Amino acid sequence: MISRQQLIDQIKQKKSFLCVGLDTDIEKIPDFLKAYPDPVFEFNKRIIDATHDLCVSYKPNAAFYESRGVNGLQSLIATWKYLPKNCLNIIDAKRGDIGNTSDKYARAFFDESASGMSFDAITITPYMGSDSVTPYLAYDGKWVILLALTSSTGSKDFQYLTTDQGFLYEAVIKKANTWANADRIMYVVGATKSTEFTNIRKYAPDNFLLVPGVGAQGGNLEEVCRYGMNADCGLIVNASRSIIYASSGEDFADAARAEAQNIQQQMQIELEKAEII
Amino acid sequence: MISRQQLIDQIKQKKSFLCVGLDTDIEKIPDFLKAYPDPVFEFNKRIIDATHDLCVSYKPNAAFYESRGVNGLQSLIATWKYLPKNCLNIIDAKRGDIGNTSDKYARAFFDESASGMSFDAITITPYMGSDSVTPYLAYDGKWVILLALTSSTGSKDFQYLTTDQGFLYEAVIKKANTWANADRIMYVVGATKSTEFTNIRKYAPDNFLLVPGVGAQGGNLEEVCRYGMNADCGLIVNASRSIIYASSGEDFADAARAEAQNIQQQMQIELEKAEII
Repeated sequence: MISRQQLIDQIKQKKSFLCVGLDTDIEKIPDFLKAYPDPVFEFNKRIIDATHDLCVSYKPNAAFYESRGVNGLQSLIATWKYLPKNCLNIIDAKRGDIGNTSDKYARAFFDESASGMSFDAITITPYMGSDSVTPYLAYDGKWVILLALTSSTGSKDFQYLTTDQGFLYEAVIKKANTWANADRIMYVVGATKSTEFTNIRKYAPDNFLLVPGVGAQGGNLEEVCRYGMNADCGLIVNASRSIIYASSGEDFADAARAEAQNIQQQMQIELEKAEII
Repeated sequence: MISRQQLIDQIKQKKSFLCVGLDTDIEKIPDFLKAYPDPVFEFNKRIIDATHDLCVSYKPNAAFYESRGVNGLQSLIATWKYLPKNCLNIIDAKRGDIGNTSDKYARAFFDESASGMSFDAITITPYMGSDSVTPYLAYDGKWVILLALTSSTGSKDFQYLTTDQGFLYEAVIKKANTWANADRIMYVVGATKSTEFTNIRKYAPDNFLLVPGVGAQGGNLEEVCRYGMNADCGLIVNASRSIIYASSGEDFADAARAEAQNIQQQMQIELEKAEII
């Protein structure tokens, strides 16, 4: 559990608003790890050991674990247990369903006694509306991170549709603001569209924004900060592949640390520029 | 694997277009089943044994299994293995993510060698656009069932937004029709809004529609058929709680059969009215 203020404190202390995305693909990890009983967990453990002082958040992508069935779920549970509990630990699951089903997903990811895991936050897709979101908010102190504007090619198909309430992604933010305040809800905003941040900040001035796409998906950190940062920082910027696969050799953890440090140093410059630290 | 024609043949043979939703909640199944090593699988097995000649489809809801961690996933895998392979076996997972992540979810639900399961179809949420859908279509003969119009209270939040391409749910269908034809894509259409079927059939005349909400969510079968049926039937109507929890006692499977038969008989009347059988 990590509150908005605790997150802000972590950002100031670590001079970083980096989230390390654990999109761990068993086919991409170094061969020598395959000698371990749970190679994916062993990989994640070493990535976490190498980066935890440089980031404020970790984000396993559920699909990468689910694709391996029971073994994958065991890797995910082991990874959750190992995550530093002063970080914002996000499950990137992009769930979204009716109320009684959302209750069950909340249990899957927020209730350790039911599933073995209790993440601090979950990514949610908004198509089904309020039912998709409110059951998670029943868990004291947990966060919903709602998709608003994503950075993939398909994002253009619907998110930019002009509705009677602005672009669809604007309508999503405006409506979701009526469900929870900035202490409980964040938005996913794709980093390849930095000028859109100005627009999003009109509707979500205080919310933290989770920004995927710096690194492999090609976002620009300086531009994201120029348009998206608020007085509390208000940004968590994710990098996955560029960090965790920085090297494919035995030095992968050192290479991940070097890349995380590189990003942290750029973030420190941005935090200083904005006089947040 | 079940093709459009095979599905139509099943419907004619069984005189039914019923899907049994396996939203199996360990807290709601009869106590005596708790003596079995996998009570949820034991429950599902008996439901399947009692209903397989009356329905053409089964649809486990992933959340109900995920909420129980590794045990739940094992119940889901055992259930998939037991499902009759001449039925359309749908995993109700409502996933939706960028391409490389959709690849992994496809593996989780379509690739037995990776995850232990290979469903025929998966429900998908459209917010992230084409990336959310096309990776599943790379699996020969597998189906995507895309959310269009749902029946929960939250459906009004976004699905009815007026866009420059009609209601959002209309824009979704129009765009998705450019990704795949009626042999590979179905739409979820909520049964509480039967008059909307006429509208949806304008854009999706040939597609099968998966209709949740007959039963516990309160849809009306006759009205759904009047507005939604096409020359091939074109409907799969789901019932979950009304069937699987028809009795909470030791006679639960018999009660489930009686309720499934009740729905099947109504379906037969509709199929005869439409001269499909």
